[in-house]
Amino acid sequence: MKFCSNCAAPVVFKVPPGDSLPRYVCDQCNTIHYQNPNLIVGCIPEWEDKILLCKRAIEPRYGLWTVPAGFMENGETTFAGAARETLEEANARVEIGPLYALYNIPHINQVYVLFRARMLDLDFGPSEETLEARLFTEEEIPWDEIAFLTVRHTLIRYYADRKTGEFPFHMGTIERPAKR
Amino acid sequence: MKFCSNCAAPVVFKVPPGDSLPRYVCDQCNTIHYQNPNLIVGCIPEWEDKILLCKRAIEPRYGLWTVPAGFMENGETTFAGAARETLEEANARVEIGPLYALYNIPHINQVYVLFRARMLDLDFGPSEETLEARLFTEEEIPWDEIAFLTVRHTLIRYYADRKTGEFPFHMGTIERPAKR
Repeated sequence: MKFCSNCAAPVVFKVPPGDSLPRYVCDQCNTIHYQNPNLIVGCIPEWEDKILLCKRAIEPRYGLWTVPAGFMENGETTFAGAARETLEEANARVEIGPLYALYNIPHINQVYVLFRARMLDLDFGPSEETLEARLFTEEEIPWDEIAFLTVRHTLIRYYADRKTGEFPFHMGTIERPAKR
Repeated sequence: MKFCSNCAAPVVFKVPPGDSLPRYVCDQCNTIHYQNPNLIVGCIPEWEDKILLCKRAIEPRYGLWTVPAGFMENGETTFAGAARETLEEANARVEIGPLYALYNIPHINQVYVLFRARMLDLDFGPSEETLEARLFTEEEIPWDEIAFLTVRHTLIRYYADRKTGEFPFHMGTIERPAKR
């Protein structure tokens, strides 16, 4: 951020009075421009013993597989956002079920919120964001081609839970990967 | 938003190519300025049969009572944010426990994430944001002076759960209040 989105004056990065963290501040119109974490909402769409994954047609992680998930939009709920992303990425209609996982990713200012979901039909397919949408059994999951650590962790746990028949809510934190 | 924070040119509110929702777009430097929901993180600080509430010294809802909660900051986890808010608002140190409630508030683009928490000591007090911090038994809760619907709903459920001894995770949505 270089300029004030309210008055176009250059902004200064400093701690405002009464605050404890530096913010982008406009000294001309006194607007403080807060920057906060983003919510990523998504789901694990289930059909019998299979789940629906999407092969990404966009960066980051073009060509790798993920569950349907994306940035939550203003004006929607977390579960409405998860259903919308599933429609946008896989042309699939789901009934959103219980909250299954929340992952903190502090080094990129994101919080992932993932639900389990029931696919309403088998009418799904690729989209502008997705090269291919496909149902996978556990044995077919492309473990070496999963796009994101959050999704990998969630699926590992999901299949462990499947063996017990119980799916308790899980919370975790993804740390910044160590430099090689 | 009136001006581009990257180049100071006026922004246009329109649907970018390949998108489905209008965004603030800069036609000069081609930056798309996304606006997304904010996370509010907080907790119910517990001490024996009491919980800690804060009387707000800031707007909105100046003078009304709430659990410690506030905007999650970049670079932190949800539970670190909840502990930080408790320190800032009530000068209280807590050990954050299980996730207890998630509330969607789509008409103000917020998602509340509330944990249960264990107070580590009785050394707490007011702050710049809080007129008074006080422990309450259930009988003492000022039900008519609770600042936010999310907090009211959460506390009603909390005391119902206390009677059963189990505190399952709860998710809800706060709708826009009807106009009078």
